Amino acid sequence: MAIVKELKSGKIIMGKLSHNSDLLEEITEICRNSSISLGKVEALGAIKKARLGYYHQQVREYAFFTIDKPMEITCLIGNISLKENKPVVHAHITLSDEKGNAHGGHLAPGTIVFACEVLIQAFDGQEFKRDFDQETGLPLWNLK
Amino acid sequence: MAIVKELKSGKIIMGKLSHNSDLLEEITEICRNSSISLGKVEALGAIKKARLGYYHQQVREYAFFTIDKPMEITCLIGNISLKENKPVVHAHITLSDEKGNAHGGHLAPGTIVFACEVLIQAFDGQEFKRDFDQETGLPLWNLK
Amino acid sequence: MAIVKELKSGKIIMGKLSHNSDLLEEITEICRNSSISLGKVEALGAIKKARLGYYHQQVREYAFFTIDKPMEITCLIGNISLKENKPVVHAHITLSDEKGNAHGGHLAPGTIVFACEVLIQAFDGQEFKRDFDQETGLPLWNLK
Repeated sequence: MAIVKELKSGKIIMGKLSHNSDLLEEITEICRNSSISLGKVEALGAIKKARLGYYHQQVREYAFFTIDKPMEITCLIGNISLKENKPVVHAHITLSDEKGNAHGGHLAPGTIVFACEVLIQAFDGQEFKRDFDQETGLPLWNLK
Repeated sequence: MAIVKELKSGKIIMGKLSHNSDLLEEITEICRNSSISLGKVEALGAIKKARLGYYHQQVREYAFFTIDKPMEITCLIGNISLKENKPVVHAHITLSDEKGNAHGGHLAPGTIVFACEVLIQAFDGQEFKRDFDQETGLPLWNLK
Repeated sequence: MAIVKELKSGKIIMGKLSHNSDLLEEITEICRNSSISLGKVEALGAIKKARLGYYHQQVREYAFFTIDKPMEITCLIGNISLKENKPVVHAHITLSDEKGNAHGGHLAPGTIVFACEVLIQAFDGQEFKRDFDQETGLPLWNLK
């Protein structure tokens, strides 16, 4: 069974990231500066290069890789919750290259912003805390 | 001309799906359990294998196919409305493999969750009901 | 540093686009008809053919290209803001073909709707105006 919680709508923040910033770190910093520890994020724009993760489910380990070329961000979606009592952004990204081919993965530090427009919607409600999950090896929400 | 309706914001639900569940069925079940018959859904995570649809517009028929490998869900977006008086989830999904190549399609039953974080936002307003649409052969909203 | 503004939730509009319409123009028209000059948009569905842009960051120029085949819209996300005092929609799109391969880019006029379900959420707050940005050559938000 899925485990879900009902939340209330919180503040809405929209804006642009700075050129040459680290995409994941910049979104995380906005959340910290705006005291957002629960919410969702979405973004579009372009990056100079991407660093992405793919989770090897059998060996329970992330493989990280770089796509070292400018690409459009066709879609970034993610959420904000707590890990070790700090707000963390968990985001996945879809990218497209000059031929229109799409790429993607788990957004890792090292993805460099060319231009990016971001929307963050905060939620009010109980804390969502990430803990080690035995079944997957991932830091998932402990919602019992 | 587009046909659109104005809606009010309803409840917000966030949580995680269960390991090994059917992605589409699990989201549908949350909607039923939470009495949501109108809304939107988004999700990210990873799947063990995907079953996707592609609509052949000329012959007006879905072709369903399986991608039988673990992939990241880089983006799932969809909506909740009524079909034959039951809440149905219409969702499309974008996935990425270990090389970072992206795949996608219409989400069909048979897509198995490895881990998935889901956000559902309900809307209040008039009913959105799906009916057979002559022009496309699809079950589209009858909003006249 | 990112530059962000806090906004209030505005009206919510959901509906379907018309068969054979231009995807970008139709969404823009909904915004104009509903007096929305600030907001976000998301959509899923299918297109008959796509016209997409890729921004060449070095030469600071968009290259536009057509993918002339029916595809699923696995994800469209975008925002609405002002450019030369008119509401403009900036959207990126992810598509998938009959093999499940994903494509994408900056949504340009010339993308033709087969069927499309759209959700627009308006925001209330200060104006977001696009101006020429020296650093990137793009029409970005002037939020100083």
